[in-house]
Amino acid sequence: MSYIYLDNAATTRVSERAAQTMLRFAREEFYNPSAGYAPALSVRRAITNAAGTIAGLLGAEAEEIVFTSCATESNCHAFACGIKNKKGNIVVGSGEHASVYECAMRLKSKGVEVRFAATDADGHVTPENVAAVTDENTAFVSVMHCSNETGTVNDIAGIAAAVRAVSPRATVHSDGVQAFCKVDTDVKKLGVDLYSVSAHKVGGPKGTGALYIRKGFNMPPFIVGGGQQGNRRSGTENVCGIASFAEAAAEYKKAAGAFDARSVAKIFTDRFSGRSDVRINGGGHTSGYVLSLSFLGLRGEIIAHGMEDNGILIGLGSACSTHVRSNRVLGAMGVPKEFAEGSVRISFCPSTTREEAEYAAATLEKVTNDLRERMRR
Amino acid sequence: MSYIYLDNAATTRVSERAAQTMLRFAREEFYNPSAGYAPALSVRRAITNAAGTIAGLLGAEAEEIVFTSCATESNCHAFACGIKNKKGNIVVGSGEHASVYECAMRLKSKGVEVRFAATDADGHVTPENVAAVTDENTAFVSVMHCSNETGTVNDIAGIAAAVRAVSPRATVHSDGVQAFCKVDTDVKKLGVDLYSVSAHKVGGPKGTGALYIRKGFNMPPFIVGGGQQGNRRSGTENVCGIASFAEAAAEYKKAAGAFDARSVAKIFTDRFSGRSDVRINGGGHTSGYVLSLSFLGLRGEIIAHGMEDNGILIGLGSACSTHVRSNRVLGAMGVPKEFAEGSVRISFCPSTTREEAEYAAATLEKVTNDLRERMRR
Repeated sequence: MSYIYLDNAATTRVSERAAQTMLRFAREEFYNPSAGYAPALSVRRAITNAAGTIAGLLGAEAEEIVFTSCATESNCHAFACGIKNKKGNIVVGSGEHASVYECAMRLKSKGVEVRFAATDADGHVTPENVAAVTDENTAFVSVMHCSNETGTVNDIAGIAAAVRAVSPRATVHSDGVQAFCKVDTDVKKLGVDLYSVSAHKVGGPKGTGALYIRKGFNMPPFIVGGGQQGNRRSGTENVCGIASFAEAAAEYKKAAGAFDARSVAKIFTDRFSGRSDVRINGGGHTSGYVLSLSFLGLRGEIIAHGMEDNGILIGLGSACSTHVRSNRVLGAMGVPKEFAEGSVRISFCPSTTREEAEYAAATLEKVTNDLRERMRR
Repeated sequence: MSYIYLDNAATTRVSERAAQTMLRFAREEFYNPSAGYAPALSVRRAITNAAGTIAGLLGAEAEEIVFTSCATESNCHAFACGIKNKKGNIVVGSGEHASVYECAMRLKSKGVEVRFAATDADGHVTPENVAAVTDENTAFVSVMHCSNETGTVNDIAGIAAAVRAVSPRATVHSDGVQAFCKVDTDVKKLGVDLYSVSAHKVGGPKGTGALYIRKGFNMPPFIVGGGQQGNRRSGTENVCGIASFAEAAAEYKKAAGAFDARSVAKIFTDRFSGRSDVRINGGGHTSGYVLSLSFLGLRGEIIAHGMEDNGILIGLGSACSTHVRSNRVLGAMGVPKEFAEGSVRISFCPSTTREEAEYAAATLEKVTNDLRERMRR
């Protein structure tokens, strides 16, 4: 069965070019990149080239890119190794992805003081809200660039500046998974030390991510061993993943330039705005790629099942949080429980068509109306 | 150019079936395994099935398998999270892979007492040598099952028993990367708590590994986040890697059953045995898949280049150690420097033919003789 797939914030399909690249490095250029013979050289070069491509998309240099197995690892690396002042406090946004939240909780369990910067009702973690909990003992700040639940884009440059005004030596990290290739992710403009990205949100395969580590920012490796990647991340490189990540990201970025995500999202918001029983979560500055809607008195899973019956696949929130029950992020935004339980996440990619969105929006209206109708009986 | 590839201990070519499996999960079954809709179910099932396959090959149960991004991560996980008695000492073999060695060094830098169990001249870390440095305060023991440099197989069951006789609650870990699918790796017989394996040594892609965690052995996750894999390893699963790893491993194991690695290795040892200027490193119980030869007064890189000129790709030692200069492992075995510098590693896989081995052995003799001849002039 063929579906209309509107859960691209969870995973994108691997692009055909990226898939062929995977295949090439699996079957032909399969040599260990650390080997000394000539055929391994082109494998090594593929990794360097991929780092150059990812760096280019981040406004960084190839040497500033470390490939990881996923953004979750990138985030763990940042939290485990990027804190210079071990006695300081750390600040994280209230709407962070589980990987950042759990890293913070792990530190808390070890006695580190963890402070949460509040989100506003639209889901933004503002520079003011970060500044409100930052002091001269703040050692590490992590605020996501773009929310995986609502698409809200945070002012990371403003946050970095606000942090540095109070605690100049604090490390600034941002989880850029949902921003990468979708909004401007020039890390130099953002002013971060560390920035996490993932392949499988931009047409690359699952199992590959990267961590931007600003040149001059020294931190120990999280995964130690044979000293690969300039001793910043050991383990034989996932060449299939890395090469296809770069291929996919470049392709995605180009396609994204010709894709108006906000106007696709507007097809949904136009249909549901003005209704007192539907909340559109996340306003202000959003990427347009992710849309969160909450239906009063309904349950997200039931809505999603109804959509699936009509050939449309949507998400509930973070796919990475399906293992956890409540919605921490919408809760932090102040979405009331009776709305939060009826939340769905609709997310797009550059190949999403207006026709698909229109059909999906109409179907969502019908499915939710039908559910209400049935409840009334 | 087509090469005779005899560096399979570094990487194997991804098998055609495994490559097709990668492709399927990249292009068709690309859904996030944590998603709630029906098409994600088969992706989730693919992970469970893969865990079952890997478990089957280890004599374990599916729930005892955690997929990681490589054996280096598996080893880091074991060392970072598998030590129960934080005040105890740890014992590692002297010939361990860089990932184990560096994990031990990281703990040492944090004040943990690290003890090395000596290897004998053949490269074995015997139960006696482990017992010699184990005491009632030993918290963690890690000895590799099969050496990546010499193919030597250690008596892990004997080691585990020896450790437990002295320190019953010590964690026993083994790096099984070079043993998996090549020798008997029944973890229940081995008596280990933790066992690391890798995909790219058995026809799977780089970037996937697994850690066996004995049921009942509780340890915290190393990579935290969305709670995937029963909260033992977070991060969206590398489905392409995991599914193709299982496919490849099952295929490799079957092929290995019909492959007499020792008789292929013997083609080399027969040619070089009895020569005072050539050392065959690693004797006694070996897997046959890895052979280490040291040529007095020559340099391994030069020999390998000479082989490459003849269309044969061989290794120098661990590909993971090319970033490090000296050969720690052969040094630990007592191989004199003037031999150690002239070391090459020849490694096989089930598709290695006797003809390839015969041609390679003859070429190795010719190349090394020519090098000596040139030095004499």
